[in-house]
Amino acid sequence: MANAKLLPVLEPETVAPCCPPLTERTLTAEEAVTTAAMFKALSDPVRLRLFSAVASHEGGEACVCDISDVGVSQPTVSHHLKKLKEAGLLTSERRGTWVFYRVEPSVLAAMGQALHHYGG
Amino acid sequence: MANAKLLPVLEPETVAPCCPPLTERTLTAEEAVTTAAMFKALSDPVRLRLFSAVASHEGGEACVCDISDVGVSQPTVSHHLKKLKEAGLLTSERRGTWVFYRVEPSVLAAMGQALHHYGG
Repeated sequence: MANAKLLPVLEPETVAPCCPPLTERTLTAEEAVTTAAMFKALSDPVRLRLFSAVASHEGGEACVCDISDVGVSQPTVSHHLKKLKEAGLLTSERRGTWVFYRVEPSVLAAMGQALHHYGG
Repeated sequence: MANAKLLPVLEPETVAPCCPPLTERTLTAEEAVTTAAMFKALSDPVRLRLFSAVASHEGGEACVCDISDVGVSQPTVSHHLKKLKEAGLLTSERRGTWVFYRVEPSVLAAMGQALHHYGG
């Protein structure tokens, strides 16, 4: 961290993968904060629809032009995509005019792992 | 719905199992509401710790006396257990002095299914 700059204060949604199965033992306070932030990112219906639109799009990525058909305004779409990025569930990359969003599998894998005794 | 009575307005946390994998297609608005409510129930760190305490307890059930060691007051514990019940993640049963809480596997299975392409 020799070259560390002053970093912006991270919102609670900013997380890294973690998380033992919920059936294994009581989570530590720290694990619970991280895991809860991931679940929180998917706790809004519009955000969840946008996320599923990206996740199910061909190649696992989509541009805003592909996924804005969820009945909310463009600024609302942008707001929720930003939240999903902050939570680490999506990454984005600009290519020419459009920003493309892609699912970050490691964070979803962590959530799946937390629930893995229950998965189908 | 011939015999439908006036039902109380359900809180958003009140859910039933559902939910296709998020990678399959864009969720419908209705599916998104149901799925988001389940994720929301686990989006609070204290609630998540309490849930993991029940889920990991011997026999998959616990009484309040077993799980109140998460650093919050008894009323707060009760509040969060109520929320988990409303979301369908826990069921409860009184036996003598104590109320016992048990994980409801079907709701967790629905959440696991939503994430199942990512699970470990």
